[in-house]
Amino acid sequence: MQLGIIGLGRMGGNIARRLMLDGHQTVVYDRNSDFVANLVKEGARGVADLPALVAGLDKPRAIWVMLPAGAPTEDTIGELSTLLDTGDVIIDGGNTFYKDDIRRGQELAQQGIDYIDVGTSGGVWGLERGYCMMIGGDAKVVERLDPLFATLAPGVGSIARTRDRVSADDRAERGYIHAGPPGSGHFVKMIHNGIEYGMMQAFAEGFDILKTKNSPSLPEDQRFDLNLADIAEVWRRGSVVSSWLLDLTADALASDPQLEGYSGAVADSGEGRWTIEAAMEQAVPVPVLANSLFARFRSRQQSTYGDKLLSAMRFGFGGHVETPKK
Amino acid sequence: MQLGIIGLGRMGGNIARRLMLDGHQTVVYDRNSDFVANLVKEGARGVADLPALVAGLDKPRAIWVMLPAGAPTEDTIGELSTLLDTGDVIIDGGNTFYKDDIRRGQELAQQGIDYIDVGTSGGVWGLERGYCMMIGGDAKVVERLDPLFATLAPGVGSIARTRDRVSADDRAERGYIHAGPPGSGHFVKMIHNGIEYGMMQAFAEGFDILKTKNSPSLPEDQRFDLNLADIAEVWRRGSVVSSWLLDLTADALASDPQLEGYSGAVADSGEGRWTIEAAMEQAVPVPVLANSLFARFRSRQQSTYGDKLLSAMRFGFGGHVETPKK
Amino acid sequence: MQLGIIGLGRMGGNIARRLMLDGHQTVVYDRNSDFVANLVKEGARGVADLPALVAGLDKPRAIWVMLPAGAPTEDTIGELSTLLDTGDVIIDGGNTFYKDDIRRGQELAQQGIDYIDVGTSGGVWGLERGYCMMIGGDAKVVERLDPLFATLAPGVGSIARTRDRVSADDRAERGYIHAGPPGSGHFVKMIHNGIEYGMMQAFAEGFDILKTKNSPSLPEDQRFDLNLADIAEVWRRGSVVSSWLLDLTADALASDPQLEGYSGAVADSGEGRWTIEAAMEQAVPVPVLANSLFARFRSRQQSTYGDKLLSAMRFGFGGHVETPKK
Amino acid sequence: MQLGIIGLGRMGGNIARRLMLDGHQTVVYDRNSDFVANLVKEGARGVADLPALVAGLDKPRAIWVMLPAGAPTEDTIGELSTLLDTGDVIIDGGNTFYKDDIRRGQELAQQGIDYIDVGTSGGVWGLERGYCMMIGGDAKVVERLDPLFATLAPGVGSIARTRDRVSADDRAERGYIHAGPPGSGHFVKMIHNGIEYGMMQAFAEGFDILKTKNSPSLPEDQRFDLNLADIAEVWRRGSVVSSWLLDLTADALASDPQLEGYSGAVADSGEGRWTIEAAMEQAVPVPVLANSLFARFRSRQQSTYGDKLLSAMRFGFGGHVETPKK
Repeated sequence: MQLGIIGLGRMGGNIARRLMLDGHQTVVYDRNSDFVANLVKEGARGVADLPALVAGLDKPRAIWVMLPAGAPTEDTIGELSTLLDTGDVIIDGGNTFYKDDIRRGQELAQQGIDYIDVGTSGGVWGLERGYCMMIGGDAKVVERLDPLFATLAPGVGSIARTRDRVSADDRAERGYIHAGPPGSGHFVKMIHNGIEYGMMQAFAEGFDILKTKNSPSLPEDQRFDLNLADIAEVWRRGSVVSSWLLDLTADALASDPQLEGYSGAVADSGEGRWTIEAAMEQAVPVPVLANSLFARFRSRQQSTYGDKLLSAMRFGFGGHVETPKK
Repeated sequence: MQLGIIGLGRMGGNIARRLMLDGHQTVVYDRNSDFVANLVKEGARGVADLPALVAGLDKPRAIWVMLPAGAPTEDTIGELSTLLDTGDVIIDGGNTFYKDDIRRGQELAQQGIDYIDVGTSGGVWGLERGYCMMIGGDAKVVERLDPLFATLAPGVGSIARTRDRVSADDRAERGYIHAGPPGSGHFVKMIHNGIEYGMMQAFAEGFDILKTKNSPSLPEDQRFDLNLADIAEVWRRGSVVSSWLLDLTADALASDPQLEGYSGAVADSGEGRWTIEAAMEQAVPVPVLANSLFARFRSRQQSTYGDKLLSAMRFGFGGHVETPKK
Repeated sequence: MQLGIIGLGRMGGNIARRLMLDGHQTVVYDRNSDFVANLVKEGARGVADLPALVAGLDKPRAIWVMLPAGAPTEDTIGELSTLLDTGDVIIDGGNTFYKDDIRRGQELAQQGIDYIDVGTSGGVWGLERGYCMMIGGDAKVVERLDPLFATLAPGVGSIARTRDRVSADDRAERGYIHAGPPGSGHFVKMIHNGIEYGMMQAFAEGFDILKTKNSPSLPEDQRFDLNLADIAEVWRRGSVVSSWLLDLTADALASDPQLEGYSGAVADSGEGRWTIEAAMEQAVPVPVLANSLFARFRSRQQSTYGDKLLSAMRFGFGGHVETPKK
Repeated sequence: MQLGIIGLGRMGGNIARRLMLDGHQTVVYDRNSDFVANLVKEGARGVADLPALVAGLDKPRAIWVMLPAGAPTEDTIGELSTLLDTGDVIIDGGNTFYKDDIRRGQELAQQGIDYIDVGTSGGVWGLERGYCMMIGGDAKVVERLDPLFATLAPGVGSIARTRDRVSADDRAERGYIHAGPPGSGHFVKMIHNGIEYGMMQAFAEGFDILKTKNSPSLPEDQRFDLNLADIAEVWRRGSVVSSWLLDLTADALASDPQLEGYSGAVADSGEGRWTIEAAMEQAVPVPVLANSLFARFRSRQQSTYGDKLLSAMRFGFGGHVETPKK
């Protein structure tokens, strides 16, 4: 099948590669012409601008936009919408806020252009392992594009079948789903990332307790000098917390047990915040997801104004003077 | 190798079975004689009381106690200590609080009896998959008992090797570790369970948002009627949150997508609380682990006194009268 | 001074009363004519619709809108804006989201109409105690309306002066401030309410522990049957937690120590959620404010889907069956 | 009335002073003889050791121990118990863990010595404002010591009476209560401090959002440059959050609006942690109290091992490299 791809960074480039490895044709564009040139060497057709991309595709066209969410994606889709014809489809594979998808889907529908949003998990591993995809949009269009999704997805692989699972639709078992109308793909991916934050923070807190169990502040007979790399490793086998995040933790600890190579100033992307917003709209209590996000906010600061206010109040009522941070 | 086992419930019975399947001898006791009789049919030697158990084992004896933490374990070990000889070893495979292990280890050492604590993960799946074990105690004794641990553990299996892992000790890769002195095994297992609470709550919150995304309180064009079983299934393949807990979630949703068979009054065992205590002793911030525990506390109540006090304050300052719970 | 008032509910009606008691003239409107009639008896001039309200005020007109945030306020201000003249001012005293204020301020400025937003704290007590007001808008307009604010505010009263306070502007000490441009008044009020949620939840949790200290699940010699009304009372005198919320708690406990008259299904208004949104926009960690909100969400539900998923996972890995909720 | 006082630091010294100002006699001891000498100048009788203290008091003796909780208090009470006679009473006015009180009360009762625990709030302000006291112990002994408590307490003062309050016991309104048996006084004080942590953190978070509302990361028309000192001041008048902690906040902001004089590495004492322990024993969800404590733990660290693990995992699944902390 044929696909236009805009945005050839780590994600977009590897999506093109995985498709080509399975025999699909790609027409690719990036404002960085080096990225285009690289993929051309690997078999893609390269173009120099959006009109050339549109001109180079057969109708009905399918164009995958893989750009940072917000203005880059918005502007590109805006320009594309002036170039495409009825029946063409724009696929947003980035991390767009799902309400923008809903709006865009409605706007493009008025022009007869289909809009598909794909929440894509897989990161740097996707080329090799495949991409787990959550897809929103019209069912018929998703059906038409199925050869692409089937290639990009991990496939059934060696993962054990879920007991009692009965479904006429085997796509989930092959690593992609049609979640619902436009926006639903990114919504499901957004919640995925919210859960990811919570799981990561659970590991972070647990390993922090393991690490500090050797603290001189504890009574000597209650200190343990634990081998964290071994602990991560053993939990990979038969324990309740076994998971890909644990595998990655074991990787990291095997080569750098003190984690000295990491800053600990932890970034967050939009999905974590949007997840909390969705929870608030739906009145769902989400203490773990929210506190995971807040831990990242806090990790990026030396000291907060709020902390200083606590010190000030403690001085006020008790004359306490805080000792400086260690 | 030979092992005495006290407590033949789900865990203890299956531990005996897994050992016998690999050719070890077991001498078993439970105050419920039916449990003893069942294992005798499967090849164990059964005894009727602790003295008989001790009499039936070769020196140096090894006895695995697999009883509920607290009084049952404490009393049994107390009685055992009066029956055993120098060089014998007591193994506590239950969910004992690690400070009790430290104390017991010190007390038994004075009698020349060795004490080993084994944090055991695997639950109902252990017979088939093996038990992930975190072991505390004297290194030489742990070494002597190695044949037992090697049998009980899952083994290397088909799990991919951790990149960059270099270690002279391959036990972690076979599913068990010697964590350190007495208490360290249960300590590591305790933290494991703390992390487990956090991961579970992360999934619970995320699926709650997915479920309520179809709520009539939302604008109609922003509702999605999502297939949660498919979502759990697709995330099992290539997503960042893939994990055994997700596998179990997919199992549960495949057969009961509304989860109508579950009460939602979620129990907690000691480990979750002890994890928070350890964090407080070590001044480690653990918002996710603690809030996971609190969510369970809350789940077991219809209404709290604290909630009523909020209503009372709201009435006090604003004349607000709360509508009854839905 | 003269003021038009739209919306004569508990807040709007008492604002009119407090102004009239101090000699101001009010021209009042509510779609419920009984509310108008009541205030006419107390000295207000009543009108039957918005055009009559506008016609009945001297230029430059000042009109206070005291309606529920969202559509009622938005629609009314929309209609007013077609009736008013350059130099008139609309005051929104409700609980409007501050970003709506910013937008409205910009829109109305294009018509030469001034816009003032007033975050108003005081609830049912305001008539007697005065209203604490946080005002956003053009400084000159706020200055022109000062006689109204000075009357509505509590005044200096008997509250001790803040040590070291030096300020050319004594309005804060009289109970109102000019916070900044349009939106800033409601923004400050919004944060006030966020803090209020946190303080309330702190009391709720603390009293819950006091209450349950008599639980049969505790060892008998560690139970206390505490008099919560006395505790609230004693803390009002010289303790660090003395506060108006504690006064209200003491009120409630004096007449209903079991709080049996309260449902405990605690409502939340927009401010709590908007506060969390603001915190997320500014990357401020707000665990206490967010968890206070989540406690209210949880209080309104019997059981969550998330809780059931926890039960399902526990059954999956451990065969645990939860006992029903007590 | 006559009272022996051990420990003449800020709290103990001022307690002696407040008692003497009302005509009581004090016999005072501190291992720092300067502290003793200072109080002797103000009218106290000074002694050089515990035997002299005991010798200098009339029977039945009453001795107030005002030392740091833990070993200093424990050792002193241990020594005292060997010196005192049946009918004497030891008062622990420090911050002892209430379970230690329960134990001590039982031990001393076997010697015929009474034990009273007094949770004392008032800090540096107590001399002037009086101490809010929560008292545990035998009712008759508390009654006998009433003249001391009545003097130390703030008294009714100018605080408005609680509506609907009807009680034969007016002590709460004068600023002290008999909470119950030994330990109950410190238990109530412990919960007081837990609530205090939560209220402080609520203010800290709210003011942090106010402060950062001027951040360059926000769209220009959505920034407000707020006067935090004025905001604290105005909330003192008629707002729902008015409280002593807010008064202290206003004090601090009046003289140092940037709070540059405070380290923000916020200490915590035992009460906050014990409150969480009590909540866990009683299965009470306390997200706000716990997260307030965790915020303090976090405030004292530059970076946590857990944060670094988050960075490591993010690198693992996404190749993300964190930018250093600002």
